[in-house]
Amino acid sequence: MLDLPRPFLFSGNGGGVIEGNTTEAMICTLIAARERVLRRLGHNSITKLVVYGSDQTHCSFQKAARVVGIDPQNIRALKTMQSTLFGLSPDLLRNAIRSDINVGLIPLYLCATVGTTSVTAVDPLEPLCKVASEFGMWVHVDAAYAGSSCICPEYRKFLDGVEFADSFSFNAHKWLLTSLDCCCLWVKDPNALVKSLSTDPEYLKNEATESKQVVDYKDWQLSLSRRFRALKLWLVLRMYGVDNLRSHIRNDCRLAQLFEELVAKDDRFEVFFPRNFALVCFRILPSAVASMASGHAVENEHGEAWELNDVNKLNAQLLHAINASGRVFMTHTVVGGVYVLRFAVGAILVRERHVIMAWKLVQERANSLLSMSGSNTPHA
Amino acid sequence: MLDLPRPFLFSGNGGGVIEGNTTEAMICTLIAARERVLRRLGHNSITKLVVYGSDQTHCSFQKAARVVGIDPQNIRALKTMQSTLFGLSPDLLRNAIRSDINVGLIPLYLCATVGTTSVTAVDPLEPLCKVASEFGMWVHVDAAYAGSSCICPEYRKFLDGVEFADSFSFNAHKWLLTSLDCCCLWVKDPNALVKSLSTDPEYLKNEATESKQVVDYKDWQLSLSRRFRALKLWLVLRMYGVDNLRSHIRNDCRLAQLFEELVAKDDRFEVFFPRNFALVCFRILPSAVASMASGHAVENEHGEAWELNDVNKLNAQLLHAINASGRVFMTHTVVGGVYVLRFAVGAILVRERHVIMAWKLVQERANSLLSMSGSNTPHA
Repeated sequence: MLDLPRPFLFSGNGGGVIEGNTTEAMICTLIAARERVLRRLGHNSITKLVVYGSDQTHCSFQKAARVVGIDPQNIRALKTMQSTLFGLSPDLLRNAIRSDINVGLIPLYLCATVGTTSVTAVDPLEPLCKVASEFGMWVHVDAAYAGSSCICPEYRKFLDGVEFADSFSFNAHKWLLTSLDCCCLWVKDPNALVKSLSTDPEYLKNEATESKQVVDYKDWQLSLSRRFRALKLWLVLRMYGVDNLRSHIRNDCRLAQLFEELVAKDDRFEVFFPRNFALVCFRILPSAVASMASGHAVENEHGEAWELNDVNKLNAQLLHAINASGRVFMTHTVVGGVYVLRFAVGAILVRERHVIMAWKLVQERANSLLSMSGSNTPHA
Repeated sequence: MLDLPRPFLFSGNGGGVIEGNTTEAMICTLIAARERVLRRLGHNSITKLVVYGSDQTHCSFQKAARVVGIDPQNIRALKTMQSTLFGLSPDLLRNAIRSDINVGLIPLYLCATVGTTSVTAVDPLEPLCKVASEFGMWVHVDAAYAGSSCICPEYRKFLDGVEFADSFSFNAHKWLLTSLDCCCLWVKDPNALVKSLSTDPEYLKNEATESKQVVDYKDWQLSLSRRFRALKLWLVLRMYGVDNLRSHIRNDCRLAQLFEELVAKDDRFEVFFPRNFALVCFRILPSAVASMASGHAVENEHGEAWELNDVNKLNAQLLHAINASGRVFMTHTVVGGVYVLRFAVGAILVRERHVIMAWKLVQERANSLLSMSGSNTPHA
């Protein structure tokens, strides 16, 4: 369904495992990468290991790196820019790695993201993997949310370059109609996992394991016991079938596109980030709150910063007013200092009329806020 | 139900959380302990941290310690003896800690066990905690299996001393009729967990968290998302009630006691370890295989070792023959070089007649093996 490159499959000497969640997938692959290096350099080198992500990488990555003993000072969150759609720059990565090597540190692991949490940004996998491979680093591709969409041929392009990575994970429990928890992880080198996570006490010895004809998933994960999560995923696949799952993804994206179009028609608003999947990031534009901002500028010396603060504040108020209605629930994020609202389609009962209702609600609440703030910019 | 000391409860400034499994509970508490030390000494000291358990501590502990970056050379599995019922000796612990400190290492964490996997040995909690506290170490009490029994007043004694520990966990999914996974963890200092495991990205900010009136369990565990495991445990407690759960534990122990008595009546066998809970560890005695052993001794120069090997081998054959019957399933372990069979009562449908049947099966298979081996010791 995902058209994963053969080296990630058992038939290509790779393999897959269902973990609970992305943090666990990251911890397990971080340990595999860490042990691969420490077996060569000795355990004391653990203090010199450096891991890389962007400032858009999910916070689980920082947590996972801390869990496996990476010095918090050696966890890089490289800056992304709106101009490059919040993707991690390969040049910036190479420069960061070189700086770290110059001071005696050891580059270990890169977490690249397909569909970041804040705005669903997509890191450029192929060039990033090329940089990482120059330095012998492990590359993990985290497509927690967006991975599900890649079962549609037209979205598969977002995974282009994954063939150069070492591991890949996505959460079927996010957007593939599977209940929590179900994080699908593939690795090219299962031995790297097994060597680092295996246990072999007497009370677990058994003929099946000794025959080497079975996969002992306990050595691919943190815990010993394991719930039968494959069963629920299998039932989802059998019950819906690939075509219906693709329709489900496409339908969500189509509804998000509708919302995106509605936002674009109202010149008080902007779509902050070009929609990739079923998330629309939007906000009230600074121009729409210009009169309020200039009103406050009298009291404040820092013209521009104050203005951004005011715009952010108004958008936060808008989110609060929307959610206070009890009719829809949206979330927010802050990227590059900008507060944006997040409208996500994901529930299977959402229809076009709900999207239109949600947008009308946004407009109504924006009308009230902007009139209270003294702005009377016309709207569509 | 467990009569836990107040400092482990929210009302006593401690707190509880349901983790997936013991490995996760150990990883989380290890990180809390690790960060407490590293915040003081700097991250480079991670290479000097030492953790302690016994050679009976579950293998999850070694794995958890490796996961959080403890040097594998600094994971101590202190030797236990049959003469002290495979409990960890406080004197041995103190000596080990002193030796480690003498070479510049830093004692971090002790994992004490109530009901070890192999034979359900119980470490002496109070004296061990006293030793650990001399050196400012974190003590975790792992009662994964046996903890459930402590809901019965007559078994609660096995937890005596837990009041001196820092954390305690048991698996309701093992012996408390709850489905996998459900590991209950309590800590005295939740802040130690939260400080080490918290994440605070913009997209997770919310009023409830900012009010500090809620417990954010994401900061008590590895993953961000969380299944509602409390619900199934609550349903178990409501459906059975405390009295019935106690009866369930007592019934299992009574049936195990019956099996233990049957073993004791047959002088070809020994109960290898005095039964604490619902597990009986037993084996065919060396004396019963004496004739076979002496037969082999001709071919082997190492008299005693050969004899033990032979006894172990025969007991392994016995286990294989029992399980090959398809009527019961038993497991084995090796403790102090001795191979023993493990008969565990745990399934709710087990009745006295099943236990008697199981023992008859053991005797029948032993008869065959011992007659093949040339022994004809009489049996009850």
